Amino acid sequence: MAAGHLDALVDALRRLPGVGVKSAQRMAFHLLQHDRAGAQQLARALEEAVAHVRHCSRCHTFTDDEVCAICRDASRDARLLCVVESPADQAALERTGSYRGCYYVLMGRISPLDGLGASALGVPGLIGRATDGLVEEVIVATSFTAEGEATAHVLAETLRPRGLKVTRLARGVPAGSELEYVDLSTIAHALVDRR
Amino acid sequence: MAAGHLDALVDALRRLPGVGVKSAQRMAFHLLQHDRAGAQQLARALEEAVAHVRHCSRCHTFTDDEVCAICRDASRDARLLCVVESPADQAALERTGSYRGCYYVLMGRISPLDGLGASALGVPGLIGRATDGLVEEVIVATSFTAEGEATAHVLAETLRPRGLKVTRLARGVPAGSELEYVDLSTIAHALVDRR
Repeated sequence: MAAGHLDALVDALRRLPGVGVKSAQRMAFHLLQHDRAGAQQLARALEEAVAHVRHCSRCHTFTDDEVCAICRDASRDARLLCVVESPADQAALERTGSYRGCYYVLMGRISPLDGLGASALGVPGLIGRATDGLVEEVIVATSFTAEGEATAHVLAETLRPRGLKVTRLARGVPAGSELEYVDLSTIAHALVDRR
Repeated sequence: MAAGHLDALVDALRRLPGVGVKSAQRMAFHLLQHDRAGAQQLARALEEAVAHVRHCSRCHTFTDDEVCAICRDASRDARLLCVVESPADQAALERTGSYRGCYYVLMGRISPLDGLGASALGVPGLIGRATDGLVEEVIVATSFTAEGEATAHVLAETLRPRGLKVTRLARGVPAGSELEYVDLSTIAHALVDRR
């Protein structure tokens, strides 16, 4: 095996999440053998992202500017604030085209096992954002996992005493699914929340 | 979703083999949120690898130098030349500690579906390397897949008329395996090659 710069590249690729030594070797060989232009493009993209991508001062998502495009959009409903875990979750909500309010992106969820408490997330920033006098309802759209539910609970406990209406995305049977294949917990929730 | 540099980074990460849009987003978020030092390290490693890693002039593997460390090692047996598909395969053979000859790294295998013929691989270079007057036996260690076998066949047809002994790695039952779980083709080969 070649030493030096190739090994350094394999080591660096292993810092990517979900990439072990075999994948890192395969990536390094592919880039050096077939796609050196792609390697240079990736190097430039990494450097520019590190230099320029920062957090929106209003909603905490990633942006190149002081305030992100959604927060700058005056046509969004300032009375609604949707709290999500990540920019990917925000993108999923945006793709539905059915939400016209604002967002707050936590950049994580409460995870005691990883040492992530409410203050490590953007919770203090969220309190400031939600108590701007315009927000009336906070829609908690964290994941429906144990950690996401814990995060939602903490957010509700923190925001309700401040006079805000706190709601949660509805749980129920996913669109297009056949009932016999839906897990029992989901059916139970759909029964309770029937309308 | 943030635009600009973050999107450019996600696009660049998708050029890595085996990385789709979800993985690329996860990698970009992880690097920007938790490991900006890792992103900078990866950018530097990519640039230096592209600038400095080239092919060994004797065995065609990746190296920082004109001739790689194994080819420079005068204690290696110059009469034996082992042909492998990739630097990873070469590394696997080296880890066994049971081979003291030289290598030739094809950097691929014959794959008509991908438009890769014998000349696209290092086959012309291999012929030059194998007919240096010192090599007596060429050990073909390409994969035991359809493409690897086709490559081995082409190499044998090309090298035998030049007076070289061409051998292939033995096929048989892997060490530590129970016979009832070994596939039939492997058992059949092990029966034919019994010793």
